[in-house]
Amino acid sequence: MTAQRLAALAVDVGGSSLKGALVDVTGRSVRRETVPTPDDGGAAIDAIAALIGRLAEQARVDGLRLVGAGVVTPGTVDDTGTVAYASNLGWRNVPLARLLTERLGLPVSVGHDVRAAGLAEQLLGGASGERDFVYIAIGTGVAAALFSGGAVLPGAQRAAGEVGHVPVHPDGELCTCGQRGCLEVYMSGAGLSRRYLARTGRERSAKQIIARIGHDPDAAEVWGLGVRTLALGLATLTLTVDPSAIVLGGGISRAGQALLGPVRSELDRQLAWRSAPRLVTTALGTEAGRIGAAILAFRHAGVGDIVTSWPKADALIP
Amino acid sequence: MTAQRLAALAVDVGGSSLKGALVDVTGRSVRRETVPTPDDGGAAIDAIAALIGRLAEQARVDGLRLVGAGVVTPGTVDDTGTVAYASNLGWRNVPLARLLTERLGLPVSVGHDVRAAGLAEQLLGGASGERDFVYIAIGTGVAAALFSGGAVLPGAQRAAGEVGHVPVHPDGELCTCGQRGCLEVYMSGAGLSRRYLARTGRERSAKQIIARIGHDPDAAEVWGLGVRTLALGLATLTLTVDPSAIVLGGGISRAGQALLGPVRSELDRQLAWRSAPRLVTTALGTEAGRIGAAILAFRHAGVGDIVTSWPKADALIP
Repeated sequence: MTAQRLAALAVDVGGSSLKGALVDVTGRSVRRETVPTPDDGGAAIDAIAALIGRLAEQARVDGLRLVGAGVVTPGTVDDTGTVAYASNLGWRNVPLARLLTERLGLPVSVGHDVRAAGLAEQLLGGASGERDFVYIAIGTGVAAALFSGGAVLPGAQRAAGEVGHVPVHPDGELCTCGQRGCLEVYMSGAGLSRRYLARTGRERSAKQIIARIGHDPDAAEVWGLGVRTLALGLATLTLTVDPSAIVLGGGISRAGQALLGPVRSELDRQLAWRSAPRLVTTALGTEAGRIGAAILAFRHAGVGDIVTSWPKADALIP
Repeated sequence: MTAQRLAALAVDVGGSSLKGALVDVTGRSVRRETVPTPDDGGAAIDAIAALIGRLAEQARVDGLRLVGAGVVTPGTVDDTGTVAYASNLGWRNVPLARLLTERLGLPVSVGHDVRAAGLAEQLLGGASGERDFVYIAIGTGVAAALFSGGAVLPGAQRAAGEVGHVPVHPDGELCTCGQRGCLEVYMSGAGLSRRYLARTGRERSAKQIIARIGHDPDAAEVWGLGVRTLALGLATLTLTVDPSAIVLGGGISRAGQALLGPVRSELDRQLAWRSAPRLVTTALGTEAGRIGAAILAFRHAGVGDIVTSWPKADALIP
């Protein structure tokens, strides 16, 4: 009998989709599957278990030896893999790691989605080699992972990095959270669409709005205030935690230079008396969470060191 | 010959005064001396050396055995005790620890004033036993020390905690730093006085303004916006680093309940969807920096453990 290659299962749990992957010991996603997230919190757990089950079966067919699964979710996750609270998923005190481990009969590690993505960026992506940096995911909403001295900063209630709700514009527009002027009201997938709709009466995705910047004054206006708001938020983050680099991730980071250029110059303008940190877009794109989940699984199995031999971002993304 | 009691010298270097103390092994400040800070950066170093010299002579007279001196300053201080930059003192790349050690012939440790004060609050004061907390000094200006997992967060360039210059009010009033709407424009000794003067044409200290809140509408207005601005800044800090406690220090914290009550309710209002951290005023008052400096000296001498036997705040302050 020949030695089987190791592999891990990875699931990035989002409010709209569950992104699964079977990741082998070289970091390659040999199988990937994305399914919609059920609305009901219990059904979401069933769907995660089913997705892991299908990928595990695939591992068997491919002759891979599974070390376990890594699952990353938004919300508040403790050391035991219990999700204290995840509003989008309707979870409250869900012992997700234990439930999935029991149901699937293999070790399941549960982590925080943005922190896992930040870890992947640190090991393989845009923050490679950085010890003090911020990874900020700008998708439907906004959240960040803060790294200091190489390690992530969890916060007293494991709620550090909720920068999507910092009040950038006091007395600004109302947020879904009940507060006013939050960062993600102006710069997020949902925020950009909502503000464009309010101005024009037309429903457009953030991607469509970004594509219209050059010829649609409403798109330019909505995007411009979004960029300025993000830069103000990053100025505050810089003054507060003093990172050497900020990595912009999440779906909105696909805007690339349309985002990076103006945010960088506005951030420089806001930081009159100190230099800005290095500002880059994610190297792992929206795969960062899934890759981070696989890293959690390999680490949990005691073989986290293999990640150092993985190719850097470009070679990892299928 | 009987064993001599140990003692350390401590100097808290401020923009307007140098606060020195001779602190014995029980944490008691047996001698204290405060002198004005000379305007010239070189003269300031001479004055610090002279102050330490006088306190050292006093130690000799009192029969105490000196372990060394701790000096805390604003600005950017590295591990070797070099001050990379301190604007109020006109220092740039001043190897303060080395200069003072050579001149005085005793070990001198140099640290950051607000971080040393935060350390003193953690060991002996308002943040006693806290591992994830923020100490924010609201004096002439505003700066914070962020603690995570028990340790201070220095930042990539040792510039973390410069929250006095976070842009709380975008497009707000001009700050001395060249930016607009900074926290300390609205809530700091200098900021309160400047805004009161601009409204009324009268020069009053922050202390006088606070005393007039009940019967002077201009004082109430200036203070009210200061409180709201501070609460907005603390909401952002809470969402970003998730502390279990925030300790308000610096001269303005002497306002006590006039500060704590309204800031607490405004902070609760700003944090609609999560609980606020415990909010307290400093237990060490404006002595926190000087006590922190003494702790640095005892630690540097390898006897930092003695601090655990010191009485808590009330008994320490002369």
